[in-house]
Amino acid sequence: MAARLLNGQAIADQIRAEVRPAIDAFTARAGRPPGLGIVLVGDDPASAIYVRLKLKSAGENGLRADLERLPASASLAELVSVVDRLNRSDAHDGILVQSPLPDAMGPDAERRVFDAIAAEKDVDGFHPTSVGRLVQNRPTIAAGTPSGVIELLERSGIGIASQRAVVIGRSDIVGKPMALLLLHRNATVTICHSRTTDLAVVARQADILVSAIGRPGFVTADFVKPGATVIDVGTTHVTDRATVERLYIAGSVRRETFNRRGSLVVGDVHPEVVDVAGALTPVPGGVGPLTVVMLLKNTLRAAELRLENRGR
Amino acid sequence: MAARLLNGQAIADQIRAEVRPAIDAFTARAGRPPGLGIVLVGDDPASAIYVRLKLKSAGENGLRADLERLPASASLAELVSVVDRLNRSDAHDGILVQSPLPDAMGPDAERRVFDAIAAEKDVDGFHPTSVGRLVQNRPTIAAGTPSGVIELLERSGIGIASQRAVVIGRSDIVGKPMALLLLHRNATVTICHSRTTDLAVVARQADILVSAIGRPGFVTADFVKPGATVIDVGTTHVTDRATVERLYIAGSVRRETFNRRGSLVVGDVHPEVVDVAGALTPVPGGVGPLTVVMLLKNTLRAAELRLENRGR
Repeated sequence: MAARLLNGQAIADQIRAEVRPAIDAFTARAGRPPGLGIVLVGDDPASAIYVRLKLKSAGENGLRADLERLPASASLAELVSVVDRLNRSDAHDGILVQSPLPDAMGPDAERRVFDAIAAEKDVDGFHPTSVGRLVQNRPTIAAGTPSGVIELLERSGIGIASQRAVVIGRSDIVGKPMALLLLHRNATVTICHSRTTDLAVVARQADILVSAIGRPGFVTADFVKPGATVIDVGTTHVTDRATVERLYIAGSVRRETFNRRGSLVVGDVHPEVVDVAGALTPVPGGVGPLTVVMLLKNTLRAAELRLENRGR
Repeated sequence: MAARLLNGQAIADQIRAEVRPAIDAFTARAGRPPGLGIVLVGDDPASAIYVRLKLKSAGENGLRADLERLPASASLAELVSVVDRLNRSDAHDGILVQSPLPDAMGPDAERRVFDAIAAEKDVDGFHPTSVGRLVQNRPTIAAGTPSGVIELLERSGIGIASQRAVVIGRSDIVGKPMALLLLHRNATVTICHSRTTDLAVVARQADILVSAIGRPGFVTADFVKPGATVIDVGTTHVTDRATVERLYIAGSVRRETFNRRGSLVVGDVHPEVVDVAGALTPVPGGVGPLTVVMLLKNTLRAAELRLENRGR
């Protein structure tokens, strides 16, 4: 029997419908909408698409959203000074610097910029203080993608407590916060990575398997316990025909899409997993839509916290 | 064959011998020793013993260590004002507020006091910023007990990379930072807790099993894969004869100690595990001595970082 597909778009729409009245209530109370400043450096086409999506979603849902663009040649100091201005701005409750930054800024640039964002405006949840509060199970704002996965599980009626959860990938942005969020909901959590021995064996112990490594089709059927829930966070833009032909059979919709566009967004989870898993998030249309809507929720939360703290 | 016993005291002595010249070098460079302020509230006898140990160890190893005592009746505001004074003190590089605080201070008191300690003086590693930096694998200062366990493993020649590690307990002070430190050394890490199903089965997958729950003798032989390394972080002061008689046979040294003193410090690991494990930390004399020496190391590190930052 094929796995139940978890429709991220429908759940994102549901969350959006819930958040909207709260945004309007904030605007009425504060006399201004919650404000989001997005900083985009350089010309990475994927980043431009993501930023456009985020701006559109913010604008359509009652947020003020301002884009600050810097050329690829901008220095780290220039970028930090834009962040500083947003830190001081009364109209902005959330700040997001789109990753990745141009290589020319240096290997440490991203970390230094994230550190420079005022913790209370850190709507991505990347600031060390945000991360520490997440570990201590009193998050103000948690990273969007893993928070979105929790919403997806809970709203799909998939129990987390006392389940074995395995997270493949240990990034600061997804893997580690994902593990902590599952742990705080009483899952027994294992984190796997490139140095894990017998990865398929470990993964197969999972009732909930989350993959976030960005390797197209890496999670094959032998990684999955029959009936398990599989959450695919990986999204890789594949332009290489051989990979697409390895993963999708001739005449399939995905192949046709690739033939038409010359590229395809592919998850970590191999298509054959649909025959083993009990529930599965598709790519696209699974976790992705949640990430965008969590940004709305996080910006609103940052705005509300700022207003409360001012009231004290 | 009985497990190899990992001698925490010998390793602590080795670390102390390495740290001492660095402490003296700091004192020569800065014109003052690294300074530690310890705050003790109330009359808890165990806390008094721990604080005395820490003060003695600091004093003997070239640190300045000052004790600030507050009565059990002190308010949270009074405690925070002592912390504030130490935050501003030039002579103090590290601040430690001994846990637990009196119940009368309220359930949230500990968290609020730890938050009030300046992050750069947080030698316990409990501040959210310290924890966030630990998650991001760029710790300035990590919690003493889990850091001590890493030292113990590494200096005992026990490999961590690619091993399966299972941590029982998910406290902010031991369980969670322990899991992160093992993860960053490339172990495949599972965190278990009171809501874990089939705990013994999960524990038995571990090459390295760390227990930190404070339940005397909870980890029995069936929790342990033959040859595994077992780290016992639990220390419970047992005064109840039945527990001691359940764990230790008549005529054993431990029973005799209990008979003489009327109490016994007992770990989470059942004595029978010595016949299954490959290596094992005793209680007492295993992890405990490391915790104390890590405080020296953390205070020195905090002092060095303050000096560096001032030099900029």
